Amino acid sequence: MQGKLQELKARLAEIADIDMANAVLGWDQNTWMPGGGAAARGRQSATLAKISQEKMTDPALGKLLDDLLPYAESLDPDSNDARFILVAKRDYDKVVKIPPEFIGRLYEHMADSYQAWAEARPKNDFAAVQGKLEKTLDLSRQFAEYFPGYEAIGDPLIDLSDYGMKTAEIRHIFAELRKELVPLVQAVTNQPLADDSCLKLYYAPEAQLAFGREVAAQIGYQFENGRLDQSPHPFTTRFSINDVRITTRIQEKDFNDSFFSIVHEAGHAMYEQGVDQSYEGTHLASGTSAGVHESQSRLWENLVGRSRGFWTHYYPIAQKHFPAQLGNVSLDTFYRAVNKVQRSLIRTDADELTYNLHVMIRFDLEMDLLEGKLAVKDLPDAWRERYRSDLGVASEDDRDGCMQDVHWYAGLIGGAFQGYTLGNIMSALFFNQAVRDNPQIPAEIEGGKFGTLYGWLREHIYRHGRKYTANEIVEKATGGPMVIDPYIAHLRGKYGELYELP
Amino acid sequence: MQGKLQELKARLAEIADIDMANAVLGWDQNTWMPGGGAAARGRQSATLAKISQEKMTDPALGKLLDDLLPYAESLDPDSNDARFILVAKRDYDKVVKIPPEFIGRLYEHMADSYQAWAEARPKNDFAAVQGKLEKTLDLSRQFAEYFPGYEAIGDPLIDLSDYGMKTAEIRHIFAELRKELVPLVQAVTNQPLADDSCLKLYYAPEAQLAFGREVAAQIGYQFENGRLDQSPHPFTTRFSINDVRITTRIQEKDFNDSFFSIVHEAGHAMYEQGVDQSYEGTHLASGTSAGVHESQSRLWENLVGRSRGFWTHYYPIAQKHFPAQLGNVSLDTFYRAVNKVQRSLIRTDADELTYNLHVMIRFDLEMDLLEGKLAVKDLPDAWRERYRSDLGVASEDDRDGCMQDVHWYAGLIGGAFQGYTLGNIMSALFFNQAVRDNPQIPAEIEGGKFGTLYGWLREHIYRHGRKYTANEIVEKATGGPMVIDPYIAHLRGKYGELYELP
Repeated sequence: MQGKLQELKARLAEIADIDMANAVLGWDQNTWMPGGGAAARGRQSATLAKISQEKMTDPALGKLLDDLLPYAESLDPDSNDARFILVAKRDYDKVVKIPPEFIGRLYEHMADSYQAWAEARPKNDFAAVQGKLEKTLDLSRQFAEYFPGYEAIGDPLIDLSDYGMKTAEIRHIFAELRKELVPLVQAVTNQPLADDSCLKLYYAPEAQLAFGREVAAQIGYQFENGRLDQSPHPFTTRFSINDVRITTRIQEKDFNDSFFSIVHEAGHAMYEQGVDQSYEGTHLASGTSAGVHESQSRLWENLVGRSRGFWTHYYPIAQKHFPAQLGNVSLDTFYRAVNKVQRSLIRTDADELTYNLHVMIRFDLEMDLLEGKLAVKDLPDAWRERYRSDLGVASEDDRDGCMQDVHWYAGLIGGAFQGYTLGNIMSALFFNQAVRDNPQIPAEIEGGKFGTLYGWLREHIYRHGRKYTANEIVEKATGGPMVIDPYIAHLRGKYGELYELP
Repeated sequence: MQGKLQELKARLAEIADIDMANAVLGWDQNTWMPGGGAAARGRQSATLAKISQEKMTDPALGKLLDDLLPYAESLDPDSNDARFILVAKRDYDKVVKIPPEFIGRLYEHMADSYQAWAEARPKNDFAAVQGKLEKTLDLSRQFAEYFPGYEAIGDPLIDLSDYGMKTAEIRHIFAELRKELVPLVQAVTNQPLADDSCLKLYYAPEAQLAFGREVAAQIGYQFENGRLDQSPHPFTTRFSINDVRITTRIQEKDFNDSFFSIVHEAGHAMYEQGVDQSYEGTHLASGTSAGVHESQSRLWENLVGRSRGFWTHYYPIAQKHFPAQLGNVSLDTFYRAVNKVQRSLIRTDADELTYNLHVMIRFDLEMDLLEGKLAVKDLPDAWRERYRSDLGVASEDDRDGCMQDVHWYAGLIGGAFQGYTLGNIMSALFFNQAVRDNPQIPAEIEGGKFGTLYGWLREHIYRHGRKYTANEIVEKATGGPMVIDPYIAHLRGKYGELYELP
C-alpha cells in the first residue's frame, strides 16, 4: 500500500504543479502582463487546465484511489494519510461525475452569458439577459443532478466552495442572523451618517502601499514567502505554501479601499502560508472552504483591522505616514470613519454591518430560483422587495439591482455567496475562542502585537489545510457547532458603543 | 493532408503553450518571486518540462511528421507550410535521437558539476573540477555520437544553437578574424586608456531605468508587447510574439552596465516581436539561431548604441537626465568612455573590440578538447597561453582563467560560445547592407530616427523567424555568404578614428 500511496502522491503532486503553474500565469495576467500578451495567455492557461483535467480524470488515478480506500479506512481516521486519501477521492469523484460534454456546454454558455451581461448592464436591460439566466438555471440544476441523493438541490452547488454545508443548515443560520441584523441595521442607519471625509483626501499610492505593507508584515503575513502587487481587483493566489501572493488596488482618494484590501488579502494569505509544510503538493495544502477562508480575511480585516484597539496602536503611526491628511483628525473621528455604516445598493461597497444583508438576499434568492419557488422573470422585483424590507432602500433600475454582481452571469446559480457570511460568522466564533483561550489578546492588539492570536489561528485552523471540513474545524477549535452568538455579540458591542444604542 | 497539417499544428501549439508557460515561471523566478517560492518553482518547472518532452517525443507526432514529409517536399520549398513541417521534423528528430536515460545522467552530472564549480572557483581549485570536466567531455562526445555522419565532432553540438554552421566553417572564419583582430587590439591597447570616470559616478536606479526605457521604445521595442524589469542577469524571454520581455541589472555606479544591457536585450526582443504574426504557436515563431539573435542584440547595442551618430542625438538628452554627472562632460569624452578598450581577463567585462578574442579562445579550446587535441588537465595552461598571445594578459590563477565562465561546468562542452562572435560578424554584415539599401540610415540615427533601419531588419530578418537558417538569412539579405569584411571595416573605421591609427 505504501507504494500505491506514493504513486497517488506523485500523481497528485504533478497535477498540483500544473495547477500552480497556471496560477502563476493568472497572477502575471492580473499584475504585470502587457496588453499584447492576452491572447496567447488565454491559450496557455486553457492548455494547462486541459492537461490538468486529463490527469485528474485518468482512470488509473481512480483505480489507485479505489485500491487505497480500504487502506485509508483502516487507518486512524485522524491521520494525515487517511485524510489525504479521502479528500483526494472526494475531489476525484467530483471531477469524474461531470461529463466533459457538459463542461464544454457550460463554458460556452458562460462566455455567451457574460458577454450579454457586460453589454446589457450599462443599458439596464434585464430582458436581454433573462433568457441567459434561465439557461444558467437549467445548467445549474443539471449540475446538481450529477450528484444524486442530495437533500436540497442547492447542496451539490454549495459543496463546490463550502464542502459539507447544507442548504437547510445555512438557511437556518441566515434566518437567525437576519432576525438580529435587520433591526440593528435599522437602529444604526436611522442615526446621522459618520463623517468619513478624512478618508477621501489624496493619499499618495506609494505611501498607501508602504503603510499597508508594514501592517501586513506585522500581523503575520510573511513577505519572504509572498509579495504584494497591484491589480484591478485585489486577490490572493498560491503557488506553494511558501509562495502565497496578494494584490491590492489603489484609489488615490480613498484610504479605506487599499488598506483594508491588503489586510483582507493578508488574512487569506496567512491561512495558506500557515498550512503544515508536510502537506505541500497534496490535496490537503490549501484552505478548507470559502467560508473558513473568508473567516480569516474578515477576522483580520474587521475584528482586528477595524477595531478600536488596533487603531489605538496604529493611528499614531498612520498619522506619521499621512500627516497632511490625518494630523488634525482625532482617533475617534478616524475610528468612526473606517466603521461608517450606511444603507447602500451595492454589495461590494457595503460596510461590515450591512454586508451580510446583501449576501443573504442573494443566497435566499438563488436557492428559491433553484428550487423553482422563484421564476427568473420575477427576479428583479423579488430583489427590490428584499432590499426594501432588509435594507430600507431599493434600486429603481436593475443595473444596481439584480444585475450588479457578475456571479450569476459568469457562473452557476447557487453556492457562490454563502461563504462571505459564513466567514463573518466564523470570524467571530474563532476570535472569541482565541480570546477565551488567551485573554491577553485584546491588550496585545492595542500594543501592536499579534503573535498570540496568529499562533492560535495557526494551531487551530491554518496548519490543518483541507484536512478537516469547516464544521470539523469549528467543532475542534471551539468545542461546539457553528453558532451566530459571538458574531451578533461583536456587532452589538461594537456598533452599540459607536452609535450609543440602548 | 490539410487535416494532418492542422493536427500537427495543434500538437505543436500545445507544446508551445506548455513551453511558454514554463518561460513565464522562469521569468517570475528571476524577477519577482520571493525566496520561499524556489523549491516549489523548481518542481513546477521540471513537471512542465517533462510533459512537454513527453508530448514532443510522442510516436504519434513522429508518424504525423513522416506522413507529412512527402507533402512538404511537394510544396514550394519557400512556402511557410513546407518550412514549418521541415523545421518541426528537424526538432523532433533532435529530441528523439537522445535517449531519456542519457538526459537523466546528463542532468544529474550537470547539477553535480555546477555545485563543484561553485565551490571550487572561489578557492581557485581546478583540481576539484578536473574530473567533472572530463566526464562532461565524455558526455559531450557521447551526445555527438547520437548524430552520426557529422563532419566534425563539434558539429552536432554547434547545431544545438547555430543550426547548419559547421566547425570547419567557423574555425576558418574565426582564424581570419583573429588575424585581423590581434594586431588591431594591440595597436589600440598600446595607447593610453580612455577616461571613463564620468560613467562611474552615482546614477540613480530610477533615472537609469527611465532613460533606458525611453531609448528602448524609440529604437523600436514595443512596450505594449513587452516589459522591462530587473533581474540578477539581464535576459530576454518570450511568451508569445506579442509578449517578449526584457530585464536589466542596475549598478548604481556604472552607467554602462544597465544602459547597454537594455539596448542589447531590446535588440533580442525586437527580433522576437518582429516575427510574422501568422507563425504564432508554430516552430517558426522565434529567432533562428544564437548567432543571428546575437547579431541583433549587438547591432543595436554596438553598431547603433555605441556609435557617434547615436550619441549626437542622445547625448544632450542623457545630459538632461543626468545633469550632475554629465552636464560638464563633452560628447567626445563621453563617446570615448562608452567605447573604452582595454586588455582584460574576464569575457563578460570585455569591450566591443576585445570581446571576440575571448570568445574565439573558448571556441578553439572546446573544439580541441572534443577532438582530443587537448586534455582537460592541460586546459589551464592552454588557456593562459592563448590569453597571452591574443590579448597580451593572462591570469595567474584559474579562477579568472578557465574557471571564469559557468558554461562548461553547467552544460555541454562545444557549441555555447561561437554564436557571440558569429553575431558580431553578422551584425556588421546586416547593418552594412541596410545602409547600402538605404543610405539615409546614418543621418536618421543622428536625428534619433530608427524606422528605416528597423523596417529593413524586420523585412529581411525578424519576420522570417526560424523559416530560414542563419546562412540562408545572410544569403537572402546580403546576396552573398557570411564574410568578415564589413565587421573588420567597422572596427577599423571606428577604432582607427578613435585612436588615430594609421
